[in-house]
Amino acid sequence: MPMTFPASHNYDVVGLGVSTVDILALVEHFPTGDDTQPALAMGVQGGGPVASALAALARLGARTAMLDALGDDWRARQILDEFAALGVETRFIVRRPGQSSGLASILVQAGSGQRAIVYSPKNAGDLLPEELPAALVQGARFLHLNGRHWAACLHAADLARQAGVRVSFDGGAGRYRPDLRQLLPLVDICIVARAFAAEYTACDAIRPAAQALLAEGPSLVVITDGVNGSWVFPKAAGSFHQPAFCMPQVVDTTGCGDAYHGAFLFGLLRGLPLRQTAALASAVAALNSQALGGRAALPSLPQVEAFLRAQVG
Amino acid sequence: MPMTFPASHNYDVVGLGVSTVDILALVEHFPTGDDTQPALAMGVQGGGPVASALAALARLGARTAMLDALGDDWRARQILDEFAALGVETRFIVRRPGQSSGLASILVQAGSGQRAIVYSPKNAGDLLPEELPAALVQGARFLHLNGRHWAACLHAADLARQAGVRVSFDGGAGRYRPDLRQLLPLVDICIVARAFAAEYTACDAIRPAAQALLAEGPSLVVITDGVNGSWVFPKAAGSFHQPAFCMPQVVDTTGCGDAYHGAFLFGLLRGLPLRQTAALASAVAALNSQALGGRAALPSLPQVEAFLRAQVG
Repeated sequence: MPMTFPASHNYDVVGLGVSTVDILALVEHFPTGDDTQPALAMGVQGGGPVASALAALARLGARTAMLDALGDDWRARQILDEFAALGVETRFIVRRPGQSSGLASILVQAGSGQRAIVYSPKNAGDLLPEELPAALVQGARFLHLNGRHWAACLHAADLARQAGVRVSFDGGAGRYRPDLRQLLPLVDICIVARAFAAEYTACDAIRPAAQALLAEGPSLVVITDGVNGSWVFPKAAGSFHQPAFCMPQVVDTTGCGDAYHGAFLFGLLRGLPLRQTAALASAVAALNSQALGGRAALPSLPQVEAFLRAQVG
Repeated sequence: MPMTFPASHNYDVVGLGVSTVDILALVEHFPTGDDTQPALAMGVQGGGPVASALAALARLGARTAMLDALGDDWRARQILDEFAALGVETRFIVRRPGQSSGLASILVQAGSGQRAIVYSPKNAGDLLPEELPAALVQGARFLHLNGRHWAACLHAADLARQAGVRVSFDGGAGRYRPDLRQLLPLVDICIVARAFAAEYTACDAIRPAAQALLAEGPSLVVITDGVNGSWVFPKAAGSFHQPAFCMPQVVDTTGCGDAYHGAFLFGLLRGLPLRQTAALASAVAALNSQALGGRAALPSLPQVEAFLRAQVG
């Protein structure tokens, strides 16, 4: 199944979000006081929901470009080097001398997979609407965003809608805020964490929450819930539950949600049926849990296809 | 008191050690499980005992050069950029493409100052004896080392002794190993943590431990013990205790021992009497506890002189 895209689309997915640097350490125990321990594994990886979704897309073979505002410090270099290695286009990223990107120190407990995150936000200012490369957004097949760079986000979504570019939204747990209600009418593909859906709709139950989100405008709503799997609700009929793939051993779930988003868009890009798309997204998320960090175990397309074949047995 | 050095000495102190990168986060609480918290402060700083001692020396105004083997990744760039900003000479550092330096993630609890350290060692190979710039070592006034790059360390100490360059040794807590017994006869200035002295000499008491260390060859032994201060034992008579300066509030003791080493050498370079040297070293260590990270609060010479004057009242 080779990928073919119309030549008129410069990039399959343009992402607008905030890239961060994650310092990850796999530890035997969480420290309770003065304590020195060797890490079982340690790594530095780019993070951020949109950025990691693009990483998953790039790994699967899609053509992606990131929009963001970075500083000029080592964090920016780390982020850019990693995008370059993955094949994510970075030349549209704005640089702001003297500013710096967000940093997170993440301890992952071996065995339990529990994660302790300590973070420090970026001080690089938001990307501004006038800094958006309009032609890039208008030439994409998908615009993927999560509400960061707020003014530019609304503008980009408007540009995309007017150009017939589908807008994909990532609503993460703990990231609900009221002004996102302005964005949802511009969104086509709305994939949100269960906690986000509950907060947005004031409803804990999956189906009514999904229907409330669909009423805002999207043509597709997906609610994700970690090991409990995901629920897919097209505006038309045909909703279904996609179970999570159960892995014998999970190393780190960092970035699994972001990987799900990226792979879901990949399935849509390929024109796969929704059920196959959801299975692909779940498989990529499951495979991504097999190494420390949000991107270390992102599979290539042949890898995830082999995994899915093995699941069928 | 302007510093004057003979022109024949290219550098005041040449350091041979292992530079690392510390990712520091000041936190309200240590995590006990799944947990996300904003850092009260977060920073990235170079670390490593010898490297941070040189940082303290450079900040005080001494001319220093570092010897080490680094990779070519972002950690190496971070280490080199920081040395450059401090004025520590880096052009003798060997680079090994594809290798990487040690990394530590350090959570510091606000208030208690307790530190939880998770570390991952370097994979860059040791500096080799044949990679040592002999003339640099022979032209220094002090060679400062802590037993890392072991073969090069022994060779450098030999070169220094033959050239009349004083050798300074840092023995940190938990860093005792039997082969260091080969090194101590080549050492002039031996400043070690109390735990190191106890392990080396199998003696918990300060005075007999110091005397056992003096019997190995050094002309000066100092035993440091954090807030309990330090004990100074010259080979000749005149031992004394230097109390630690009590700071109203301690943010982070990371690197305070390293700062003590650097400042102690600075006092010796200036020809200060031992009591003044020990007071200077204690003051620099105390001041360094006032910010997050091993180097963020290293004082300049006017700053530490003002602090010492204020202590006298």
